[in-house]
Amino acid sequence: MASRVLIVYAHQSSGSFSAAAKDAAVEVLKSQGCTVEVSDLYDMKFKATATAEDITGELKNPEHFRYAEETKLAWEEGRLCADLTEEQRKVKEADLIIFQFPMYWFSVPAILKGWFDRVLTLGFAYTQEKRYSQGIFENKKAMLSFTTGSQETMFSPNGINGDMNVTLWPLQNGILHYCGFQVLAPQIFWAPAEAPPESRSSMLEAWRVRMQGLLKEEPLSFTPMCCFDSEKGFQLKPEAVQKHANRDFGLTVGIHLGKPLPPNNQMKAGVNGCHGSNGSCI
Amino acid sequence: MASRVLIVYAHQSSGSFSAAAKDAAVEVLKSQGCTVEVSDLYDMKFKATATAEDITGELKNPEHFRYAEETKLAWEEGRLCADLTEEQRKVKEADLIIFQFPMYWFSVPAILKGWFDRVLTLGFAYTQEKRYSQGIFENKKAMLSFTTGSQETMFSPNGINGDMNVTLWPLQNGILHYCGFQVLAPQIFWAPAEAPPESRSSMLEAWRVRMQGLLKEEPLSFTPMCCFDSEKGFQLKPEAVQKHANRDFGLTVGIHLGKPLPPNNQMKAGVNGCHGSNGSCI
Repeated sequence: MASRVLIVYAHQSSGSFSAAAKDAAVEVLKSQGCTVEVSDLYDMKFKATATAEDITGELKNPEHFRYAEETKLAWEEGRLCADLTEEQRKVKEADLIIFQFPMYWFSVPAILKGWFDRVLTLGFAYTQEKRYSQGIFENKKAMLSFTTGSQETMFSPNGINGDMNVTLWPLQNGILHYCGFQVLAPQIFWAPAEAPPESRSSMLEAWRVRMQGLLKEEPLSFTPMCCFDSEKGFQLKPEAVQKHANRDFGLTVGIHLGKPLPPNNQMKAGVNGCHGSNGSCI
Repeated sequence: MASRVLIVYAHQSSGSFSAAAKDAAVEVLKSQGCTVEVSDLYDMKFKATATAEDITGELKNPEHFRYAEETKLAWEEGRLCADLTEEQRKVKEADLIIFQFPMYWFSVPAILKGWFDRVLTLGFAYTQEKRYSQGIFENKKAMLSFTTGSQETMFSPNGINGDMNVTLWPLQNGILHYCGFQVLAPQIFWAPAEAPPESRSSMLEAWRVRMQGLLKEEPLSFTPMCCFDSEKGFQLKPEAVQKHANRDFGLTVGIHLGKPLPPNNQMKAGVNGCHGSNGSCI
């Protein structure tokens, strides 16, 4: 069966490098027989802020508004506002979601953060029981594709911005993997605004080439849920800590056990101190 | 001279724990003689998205809109829109900025990300030359004060969410320190929504007590600009790498040199493998 791809795209200008990367993705993926949908957030004037207007009908607790609880109830009862319902349909139908954006302040632009805050509601995208490797979207893939303002050297482990792997952790682990997505390695376009035209072209060409095999790529490695003790505050089980006592690296960027971070854990598939590529438990 | 404090506050409900933390800050800081201003983002219906509407008058390059360049020019010529100009006035006048918010998806809510994206414009908040320890706001302090949904154990270096210090890096280094702010240790209210009333009260009381000495606190440690070679992609100078070859920890969470992260580097003042509390060069 052909794959269905959703591209969530956040740049204001159709003349931008981000737009060219998005257009290339649409073209290459369609040529492979994929169905491609695009959410062009600025063009849609996507509302970024999480407010009571996202719920139609009566609020459960208007005096003490709590976004997660109100949207959970509204989702269960089909009372989420129209734009959220539509974005959730797109997510539900997608096998792969590509987020295409320019990095703003070491993260996604607010309009895309608003998409995460509003679309990935409690109940629809996660529950207390269904998170991380047992997450709701465990059969879907997701990836970040973005441009930077800084050069690659600045985001190295001895560069002034710090290791890009650290900056990626909250986005890739805290949002994508949290909802269960298999996270593909990010596509990073380093400082295209400062690059000469031929470098911009080769960056786009490399992206086109990568997309030929994108749907068969192995995802990044994260530590599976079964390694953590839900009775003890979701900390690593003692046997997992024990097993890694003599290893050189931590398990991931975030779950590092006070050891050096496994290099490029958030940039390359298969880098993890914990388990095999089959995601088996320690 | 009494200090001027700006509180940028992002919660929808006046009945929330975040509101109580904000109200406590206003009260305690005023009782110490501080001038306190509050930007209540939801109440202001603060626009989160970075668009051409943020610039009044002609765009320099409407065909290929680039937000950073257009807002830089507009700022120089006094053509930024009214709400940005007003927020920039508040920043300019403040000695300390406190960001009070509920953590959404391992980061700030989109409405607050929008405040960072739109208010901290190129020229006003940073330039290529004025960044990090040489940043424009080097005489100002800033801090994050936030609630989490997860328990503290989940954000430990062997907890399922990963080390909170990693999650804080992009916000504290990438936004606050990037603009030169001295970053005070974050105030983290762990999962108040699940806590019994007496725990909520003691969390607020601890915050009130901390605020008595807040303005005299030492900031977090970051690696000063002079340690990086601007001619070589802003990587650590060889002598800095050399000097730390035998040390146990990296310099910071981000600039870790492939070593274990200095524990609590983003949570406690004075934790840094690099330099003294006077910020002197290595």
